[in-house]
Amino acid sequence: MEQWLKDDERLDYLLAEELRIIQSPSVFSFSLDAVLLSRFVNVPHHKGQIVDLCAGNGAIPLFLSARTKAHITAVELQDRLVDMASRSVKYNELEEQITIMQGDVRTVSTDLGIEKYDVVTCNPPYFLAHEASDKNLKEHVKIARHEIYLKLDEMIYTSGRLLKQGGKAAYVHRPERLLDIVMAMRANRIEPKRIQLVYPKMGKEANTLLIEGIKDGKPGLKVLPPLYVYGDDNEYTDEVRGMLYGDAE
Amino acid sequence: MEQWLKDDERLDYLLAEELRIIQSPSVFSFSLDAVLLSRFVNVPHHKGQIVDLCAGNGAIPLFLSARTKAHITAVELQDRLVDMASRSVKYNELEEQITIMQGDVRTVSTDLGIEKYDVVTCNPPYFLAHEASDKNLKEHVKIARHEIYLKLDEMIYTSGRLLKQGGKAAYVHRPERLLDIVMAMRANRIEPKRIQLVYPKMGKEANTLLIEGIKDGKPGLKVLPPLYVYGDDNEYTDEVRGMLYGDAE
Repeated sequence: MEQWLKDDERLDYLLAEELRIIQSPSVFSFSLDAVLLSRFVNVPHHKGQIVDLCAGNGAIPLFLSARTKAHITAVELQDRLVDMASRSVKYNELEEQITIMQGDVRTVSTDLGIEKYDVVTCNPPYFLAHEASDKNLKEHVKIARHEIYLKLDEMIYTSGRLLKQGGKAAYVHRPERLLDIVMAMRANRIEPKRIQLVYPKMGKEANTLLIEGIKDGKPGLKVLPPLYVYGDDNEYTDEVRGMLYGDAE
Repeated sequence: MEQWLKDDERLDYLLAEELRIIQSPSVFSFSLDAVLLSRFVNVPHHKGQIVDLCAGNGAIPLFLSARTKAHITAVELQDRLVDMASRSVKYNELEEQITIMQGDVRTVSTDLGIEKYDVVTCNPPYFLAHEASDKNLKEHVKIARHEIYLKLDEMIYTSGRLLKQGGKAAYVHRPERLLDIVMAMRANRIEPKRIQLVYPKMGKEANTLLIEGIKDGKPGLKVLPPLYVYGDDNEYTDEVRGMLYGDAE
């Protein structure tokens, strides 16, 4: 096992299937948001081209590989995370389906090609750059979580360039940013079509937004049933447990 | 009682308090949406100026009178509905608090005055004009439900004109139109601040959107806990029953 891991990295399970992912408490671990987005997005089952932007340690591509046979290109800025994601792909023997590349989301459409993709996913940095004031935050985490090297508008601009007509972009973000997201989507010809709000518990305000749009789609938005993360017993709800530990689709 | 009623009109109860409202199956009856908006909107308790646009038979002003001592001006285009609403106000002896006026929402800010109001509410026509194809629809209902004489943008433009800085606009509409609403709000300096989605039942898509914005407010949206109308027994949930039949705030 040690041959696969560096420093304080761990090899964690994903889903019930034999998927594993390399994580590290001091560098980067994926969050529930990546899981939520991987389940929310509509993907073609048998073929097609998917791009995951801001891929981190590759959680979304790995989760998606359990739902689709389409090829997945994962773009990540930070070398250290590209390295973790690449080893996870190799460990799972998914090199044919998943390509991990180091790249800057702002300019990556030049390398990847314009209007060639069926689906773009992204779990982008959520917080504004000036909110990155916690000096204890590790540099890798700070870059992944804050809009230091990538702004929301730039990410959505790149999505619009990558997508074919009729292709889908799906994002996870904070509900506070809903307006910025939908306005940037429309400005880049991605019409918002489906929203799902995630609530930590019954009776609480939503803390996560899932949104999917279609390039050059017709206006008309659906709001899916709400999703609750924890039950009254403070344990994951059955729905979320199913996503994390696998109940197949 | 007959002195108050015309044709097939009825005098229906509102809330547990002694409020009553004149309705008519063939002309106009208020919907649950008016009730939901009346409970959702933030109103000053003791004083201030409120305008309700597209007031119909006056359900929102009547409901609001149970929550605030502020003065409420209700604007309605159709004479027949203005007449019903006026008689309801009189029957409830609320002439001091509620003024019903006939007016066209597109131009009414000229009469009412610019930037003088604390709150604007509206349960506008939901459907596009071309969707008014059902020939069996009564004319009064058709005008109240479809964008024949008033478009969403025009209503939000008027709201923006009426509101003071820091004043609140609250609307009820269909979730499909969320994007059009938030874009029109921002275009008229009303920053969306609170959203609540209403689901007919657990597990169903949302069919109603409540949204409130603040004139010249700072960006940042909250999504309140979801609201369910019916329980698994197909009866109103306790929450909705409380709104309809009164449980006080």
